[in-house]
Amino acid sequence: MGESAADSDAGRRRVVIEDVVPCVDGGRFAIKRTVGEEVVVECTAFADGHDLIDCRLRYRKDGNTLWSEVPMQAIGNDRWRGHFVVEELGRYAYTVTAWVDHFLSWRRDLGKWIEAGQDLAVAFQTGARLVEAAAARAQGADAARLATIARVLRDESDEGARRAAALGEELQMLMQRYPDRRFATTHTPELAVVVDRERARFSAWYEFFPRSCTDEPARHGRFADCEARLNAAAAMGFDVVYLPPIHPIGRTHRKGRNNAETAAPGDVGSPWAIGSAEGGHRAVHPELGTLEDFRRLVAAAARRGLEVALDLAFQCSPDHPYVREHPEWFLKRPDGSIQYAENPPKKYQDIYPLHFETDAWRALWDELTDVVFFWIEQGVRIFRVDNPHTKPFAFWEHLIGRVKARHPDVIFLSEAFTRPAVMYRLAKLGFTQSYTYFTWRNTKWELMQYFTELTQTPVREYFRPNLWPNTPDILNEYLQVGGRPAFIARLVLAATLGASYGIYGPAFELCEARAREPGSEEYLDSEKYQIRVWPVDRPDSLRELIARVNRIRRENPALHHDRSLRFHDVDNDMLICYSKTSAAADNTIVCVVNLDPHHVQSGWVRLPLHEFGLDPHQPYQAHDLLSDARYLWSGERNYVELNPHVIPAHIFRLRRRVRSERDFDYYM
Amino acid sequence: MGESAADSDAGRRRVVIEDVVPCVDGGRFAIKRTVGEEVVVECTAFADGHDLIDCRLRYRKDGNTLWSEVPMQAIGNDRWRGHFVVEELGRYAYTVTAWVDHFLSWRRDLGKWIEAGQDLAVAFQTGARLVEAAAARAQGADAARLATIARVLRDESDEGARRAAALGEELQMLMQRYPDRRFATTHTPELAVVVDRERARFSAWYEFFPRSCTDEPARHGRFADCEARLNAAAAMGFDVVYLPPIHPIGRTHRKGRNNAETAAPGDVGSPWAIGSAEGGHRAVHPELGTLEDFRRLVAAAARRGLEVALDLAFQCSPDHPYVREHPEWFLKRPDGSIQYAENPPKKYQDIYPLHFETDAWRALWDELTDVVFFWIEQGVRIFRVDNPHTKPFAFWEHLIGRVKARHPDVIFLSEAFTRPAVMYRLAKLGFTQSYTYFTWRNTKWELMQYFTELTQTPVREYFRPNLWPNTPDILNEYLQVGGRPAFIARLVLAATLGASYGIYGPAFELCEARAREPGSEEYLDSEKYQIRVWPVDRPDSLRELIARVNRIRRENPALHHDRSLRFHDVDNDMLICYSKTSAAADNTIVCVVNLDPHHVQSGWVRLPLHEFGLDPHQPYQAHDLLSDARYLWSGERNYVELNPHVIPAHIFRLRRRVRSERDFDYYM
Repeated sequence: MGESAADSDAGRRRVVIEDVVPCVDGGRFAIKRTVGEEVVVECTAFADGHDLIDCRLRYRKDGNTLWSEVPMQAIGNDRWRGHFVVEELGRYAYTVTAWVDHFLSWRRDLGKWIEAGQDLAVAFQTGARLVEAAAARAQGADAARLATIARVLRDESDEGARRAAALGEELQMLMQRYPDRRFATTHTPELAVVVDRERARFSAWYEFFPRSCTDEPARHGRFADCEARLNAAAAMGFDVVYLPPIHPIGRTHRKGRNNAETAAPGDVGSPWAIGSAEGGHRAVHPELGTLEDFRRLVAAAARRGLEVALDLAFQCSPDHPYVREHPEWFLKRPDGSIQYAENPPKKYQDIYPLHFETDAWRALWDELTDVVFFWIEQGVRIFRVDNPHTKPFAFWEHLIGRVKARHPDVIFLSEAFTRPAVMYRLAKLGFTQSYTYFTWRNTKWELMQYFTELTQTPVREYFRPNLWPNTPDILNEYLQVGGRPAFIARLVLAATLGASYGIYGPAFELCEARAREPGSEEYLDSEKYQIRVWPVDRPDSLRELIARVNRIRRENPALHHDRSLRFHDVDNDMLICYSKTSAAADNTIVCVVNLDPHHVQSGWVRLPLHEFGLDPHQPYQAHDLLSDARYLWSGERNYVELNPHVIPAHIFRLRRRVRSERDFDYYM
Repeated sequence: MGESAADSDAGRRRVVIEDVVPCVDGGRFAIKRTVGEEVVVECTAFADGHDLIDCRLRYRKDGNTLWSEVPMQAIGNDRWRGHFVVEELGRYAYTVTAWVDHFLSWRRDLGKWIEAGQDLAVAFQTGARLVEAAAARAQGADAARLATIARVLRDESDEGARRAAALGEELQMLMQRYPDRRFATTHTPELAVVVDRERARFSAWYEFFPRSCTDEPARHGRFADCEARLNAAAAMGFDVVYLPPIHPIGRTHRKGRNNAETAAPGDVGSPWAIGSAEGGHRAVHPELGTLEDFRRLVAAAARRGLEVALDLAFQCSPDHPYVREHPEWFLKRPDGSIQYAENPPKKYQDIYPLHFETDAWRALWDELTDVVFFWIEQGVRIFRVDNPHTKPFAFWEHLIGRVKARHPDVIFLSEAFTRPAVMYRLAKLGFTQSYTYFTWRNTKWELMQYFTELTQTPVREYFRPNLWPNTPDILNEYLQVGGRPAFIARLVLAATLGASYGIYGPAFELCEARAREPGSEEYLDSEKYQIRVWPVDRPDSLRELIARVNRIRRENPALHHDRSLRFHDVDNDMLICYSKTSAAADNTIVCVVNLDPHHVQSGWVRLPLHEFGLDPHQPYQAHDLLSDARYLWSGERNYVELNPHVIPAHIFRLRRRVRSERDFDYYM
């Protein structure tokens, strides 16, 4: 009812627009795309009565005042579909507008009157009126042409010309160019899409501790020592090297090795206990080098095609300069001390959380936002955000919004291992990528259920998964007990289920599987609390295999997206099978992974050949890109067998049989 | 980001509220309930970090400035649930408010500190602070009591008293009464519920043509002749008698019998061709009687427990006074004539549609709204609206909103037989009840699929089905070929699948099944165009059976709602089985209908006994309320057999075995 009073034409806006998708929480949040991707928009639109409507999709880059417009097609049951491509970084708005189109209705009815042999005198006059009105809205040659057609429609002497003009394509095209939009309905609110660069969607991350880039544990690795690690990451085919916090580490209540409550002399402490007399979130730990050294590291990485991602951990050690300079940003306990982090009954006295309920919250937000701008100035464009779910949601929306308004190429990865609603909220409010439950999804049913949710429900519009088989915090039991086959299976799953994935190395490629104690997911002798010298050249390293997997990822566009992921039947619960197909439908990858790290498993895979564009009556080739073996398959059902001690996975590229010009068959 | 600038505390509102249900189109439309019903509200609500939140459901009758508030319970995965009962006719608003509750977090943590044997000195001081702050917010005795408890918490001399006070229920209760809501988040927009009277949800309609209440076709029945029909409707147990339009009928282009293009002398015309020299939508057809006679009919019906429903058909015959007085409300064709109704190539020259795109649309809306108020003044509170989908949606929202603001007891039934999105839109914007596709859903799969959609999806929040096996416009093929068993099956389906249903009689109870021609759903010699004298006392009339079905409906609260409808397995596709259970769970009805009107069908029904509160190890009674036969059943699977020539349906009331005080078993 509110609407009807809104403007003097409200009562004449006969079209209703409902259920526009994609749309996150009624338009409260933006969907996500990368440059060059398509946005396919659907809506329900209809008017009262039998009149036809015209329905258009509108979009514009933020800052543009003019809308671009494309027609939408009716796809049945009052549902309409249209699409546009986002060409530039930044934000776009999109919406739908629709109106009762009397010309379209008239043209449809005229056809029926003609078919029924009715008198058309009045019908042609009605049409001429509509065309004359369009002529008045048109300019230049179009206006003249419309006026001419109107005269033809009014000319009673030439029935044939009238009919031809009325039903011809020229008139249809011209009338669609100048429709009567006085009573058009436009969907509100406008919806938004955030357009990121491709790496937001397709990326391979390698995490390592710079201080461990050393040849003996007593010597603290420096940025300058990281060159070999960068070379290795580049050789393995990664895009992003992610460094745990690089800031000065607190001394008060510093944790010792294996999280001991007190540090021994010489213990280096946790990089997440940020801040000391040497500085806070803008400073570089002196033992790693200088800010200048860091910038050199960023440049060295860039020369190898690698981007450096920094850790944003907004918390302080008791020695952080903020504690002295901004006591108002911390919660004071009744005894006058500052509240340290707690998860009762555990106490983390080496960490002071920032107190976001402070009266000075605006200043705190500004400072933390400025910290991000500071590192952007040093050349960083990717941030892995530590525990974002322990800071207010509104804060992140503010920070990410401010940063991306100036730097739309910045990527934020949310490290929120918490409840689903919280993880999804962080993604909605702006995080570019998100950690997932992948680490704990090790059975076929769990993987299918979870990745169907991530890729086939509205979640996919805003939540971009980044899959990690391990992190410095998580050595999953599956890896602890499964050994090398488990590491390979999880690598293949992460790299193919997810267009974005990452590993924490060299622990991963060396299959480091020793937990601190039984039942713990913590690494024994974790790098979080000590320097580890890694024997990276050990012959059993997975680095060659990782390089092969990353090369397969790059060479196969099917693996650059998550939307096309589909699971397929295998008659063995230890084998999981799924496929991805490129947007152009010219590249199909089928993966089969043996989830049992101990035993040979075999079964029959069933593939939907028609969906892959394969002729079910022709053989086709399943080319295993991991082993380079080629299998000749035919029909929907084919046999697979995987020995985990050889290799627990196939990454097949399906190749269809093609008859060459010189009349022999090959597979492409 | 907009939110963060909105007010000075925006950055401190840490709770997020998402996905509040029920909610129609983001709160654009109201949900529907009847007086005394419950509104169960769920939402997702959470804060950052580990703090606990408190979540409350708020509601208020429109016009009240104060909210009522009830606590919501956490039901897992950040989901919360609460409920309230709507006690009065009209509109209520509801929403959810939630905040981080530091007292609740403190109390939880204190328990953990105690368990871990930690020093509690600072913890008690922290708690005392929170309690003192609540004391400052509280009044009177509560304030004093809180201050006292705070002193206990600060008293280091009595650890036992401190613990008891801190963890006691009194403090919890007092603190929940005076929470710190400064940074509370309240969901917007407020959501609405329209509260109707019970008949909006539970009603049995009987449609008849007053002009056929006569003993010979040459004599036009008058209102005064309708008494016998009212008696019959009351005896059959109906609540509502619905009359086709009662207004003067046009003469120009009047249709003859069986929709003949020209009327013969004496032909009475269609009641839907409204308006003549004798008047329009405010007038009564002189041959039916006077306005005074009509009011007498309304009173006579009321004495029998019946309400009269009128037909609102907003269209005009060429003779309607509007045509002369308000030519601006009609579309003029280029030849100066008024545009008649068309559905090319069909022409309905006896009907002029109103032209809602007129510049004078506001005056037209006002006039039509006043027509409704006119009939309300004559005592009518129920309107069946003819073809609402051929008038603008905004018009109906305006009209229904205006009417219900003054008369919240008015019921509007939407006769929109059109596409699903259009039917649902009309229901959303305010129609109280709606015609459905029931008439054309005759197979088991169709019925299960459609009624699951209507009763188990969000559609049920706004769309109240009213099921009609026949109407003057629709004699479905199933009735044409199935004979008496088909009529009985469709009656039982309509009356039990739908809390609201209706029949067009006496055609229905006399099993009138002759179509105008093969393939047509039109009645032969339809009352729409002529007077029919019905042999209502024919011995094969279904009136006794109908009376029994309506009595079963009244006596069994399970049949007063649609929400509990569940379908159950039968191993025979000709048998359909479903149940309804009362809100109080003390009344369970199980229906089995043989959809094959020709042959005996039998099968095994499988019932979920645990859902019905029946002990699977005890026999129970299936008491057929139609035949009064009682079957002793046990276990989930039981045999049924239905001979359509006897009766094609069971309406079982399930009765469980009870041990009496005098130690014998009976079933109740």
